Amino acid sequence: MGTKPEAFNSYREKMNERLLGAENNKVIKRIFNVDTNAYLEGQLPVKTKEMLGLVASMVLRCDDCIRYHLIKCHENGMTEAELMEVMGIANLVGGTIVIPHTRRAVEFWDELNA
Amino acid sequence: MGTKPEAFNSYREKMNERLLGAENNKVIKRIFNVDTNAYLEGQLPVKTKEMLGLVASMVLRCDDCIRYHLIKCHENGMTEAELMEVMGIANLVGGTIVIPHTRRAVEFWDELNA
Amino acid sequence: MGTKPEAFNSYREKMNERLLGAENNKVIKRIFNVDTNAYLEGQLPVKTKEMLGLVASMVLRCDDCIRYHLIKCHENGMTEAELMEVMGIANLVGGTIVIPHTRRAVEFWDELNA
Amino acid sequence: MGTKPEAFNSYREKMNERLLGAENNKVIKRIFNVDTNAYLEGQLPVKTKEMLGLVASMVLRCDDCIRYHLIKCHENGMTEAELMEVMGIANLVGGTIVIPHTRRAVEFWDELNA
Amino acid sequence: MGTKPEAFNSYREKMNERLLGAENNKVIKRIFNVDTNAYLEGQLPVKTKEMLGLVASMVLRCDDCIRYHLIKCHENGMTEAELMEVMGIANLVGGTIVIPHTRRAVEFWDELNA
Amino acid sequence: MGTKPEAFNSYREKMNERLLGAENNKVIKRIFNVDTNAYLEGQLPVKTKEMLGLVASMVLRCDDCIRYHLIKCHENGMTEAELMEVMGIANLVGGTIVIPHTRRAVEFWDELNA
Repeated sequence: MGTKPEAFNSYREKMNERLLGAENNKVIKRIFNVDTNAYLEGQLPVKTKEMLGLVASMVLRCDDCIRYHLIKCHENGMTEAELMEVMGIANLVGGTIVIPHTRRAVEFWDELNA
Repeated sequence: MGTKPEAFNSYREKMNERLLGAENNKVIKRIFNVDTNAYLEGQLPVKTKEMLGLVASMVLRCDDCIRYHLIKCHENGMTEAELMEVMGIANLVGGTIVIPHTRRAVEFWDELNA
Repeated sequence: MGTKPEAFNSYREKMNERLLGAENNKVIKRIFNVDTNAYLEGQLPVKTKEMLGLVASMVLRCDDCIRYHLIKCHENGMTEAELMEVMGIANLVGGTIVIPHTRRAVEFWDELNA
Repeated sequence: MGTKPEAFNSYREKMNERLLGAENNKVIKRIFNVDTNAYLEGQLPVKTKEMLGLVASMVLRCDDCIRYHLIKCHENGMTEAELMEVMGIANLVGGTIVIPHTRRAVEFWDELNA
Repeated sequence: MGTKPEAFNSYREKMNERLLGAENNKVIKRIFNVDTNAYLEGQLPVKTKEMLGLVASMVLRCDDCIRYHLIKCHENGMTEAELMEVMGIANLVGGTIVIPHTRRAVEFWDELNA
Repeated sequence: MGTKPEAFNSYREKMNERLLGAENNKVIKRIFNVDTNAYLEGQLPVKTKEMLGLVASMVLRCDDCIRYHLIKCHENGMTEAELMEVMGIANLVGGTIVIPHTRRAVEFWDELNA
């Protein structure tokens, strides 16, 4: 059932190019720009911000968003022990409907570490 | 990752028949009826109503609902420039968790135009 | 139970000033900017865009967002007959949990017309 | 912070009359009709159906919908011990964001029993 | 498009083992424990509790949660006529965005009865 | 429109006592227990965990949950500059429907600092 990081990234890039290359897409383009800025180093370190993005994606139950932030958290040194605590809060606040997304999250996490 | 319009339509029709042919399904049947009526020409033109259905489906992040309304918007003459504005509002109001659905929406849109 | 348009507007303005005057608020400020741009006249007229914002706010069940777009729709000439069709689609797509927000919406609409 | 059953009912009735008396409201009217039918005695008893409506309203976090189904569950003989089990499932599936709604639900329940 | 009960169960079990075998997973483990307890026979029979879990999963639009509760409802003797009433309430309260999940639910239900 | 920290806390405590003192409330009681444990110092510091709870509460748009985590973040030394970054991510991921909750959040934050 899983989605591999490579397939995820290449689809994401292909469709982002399609969207950012379209005419009359100013609002979408600006949202993409803000998105890049929101996770830059600031008062909070990048790793913390990416964990904030991860927990928000989990409680909103967006698998692709979860995968994206898992990649970024992984790049920024989040450990599996930390991931478990983030996922604990997500499942507690968001309820057991978050469990299926947690299963897919940990499967993707294992791919990132493979 | 995409779903082709033909596959989408045939699965949808097969399962709608299954549901509408079941016993004791009165509530579901009536919801399907109201659904048909809500998008008929009225004070607002069909195209506007279908764009309302599209933006609602996007912020609620229902890929199949998005695909259905994309087909209807396409049939009723929505242009890509208009689609971009609808998607801009959906991503703004609903947030970046709508982006993955926007990617799949534009992929399906391209299939409709192929 | 209602909220009057004046009270709504003055609270909204006071808190927007507070937010936009805060330090280190760049992301929020930019989201406010995109928000203004998304509803400007474009391929779609302002009235249609505001109805898109209204239906999105209804299915996401945000009373303050509904009130804001009701003000804008009212300013841009949406009739009550058109409002009923927008609310019909919102209640159909979003379900009966939208009904309490519809009650408060129509109460606010009546205040706007008082 | 509470809302009394009488205030809840009178506001609900006043605004339902307003909505059902409006012109061009066919979709909303039909949704109200289906709503009445869905909770009638069928294969499942009314009490079970109202508990289904209650748990759905709780996980979707709609206070007014919760209040409405609490009134109906109360009329149909749901005990407090049963309510606790329904609320347990709602808080488990929907997560701790359901807790504030559970507090208001039990406050309303106490008013119904006062 | 369907997911077979066997594939669903084996993926679910594999990933649950992965999660429950991880270090520093205390919160997740305890949520899994509460989950087991919430659906045990109590003041309400297991079948009723599973239908409550099913309707909650439907309005929250979690396909895997729906499949899990369909298995449990099926084991506990829910009939198709009863399923239709549960699905009617789910589609009414949650709106037409629940329809695609209803299609997949009835497809999975047919697999369980095959 | 605001809710003062004292009123928030006393209502919360009164209703928690009511819930935890009820009969047959085992599931709810255990969820409250897990809730306490999830935010204890672990691999991640309490402050980070409370910010995770805050951002989750914001994107899920639960005012009372936001207030609770604001109190905890405040107690654990979160600065206003950090709050702005958390709120930036919440409004970006969750969309402009989070703005009204952001207004009420900053009003409550000001009360906490008064």
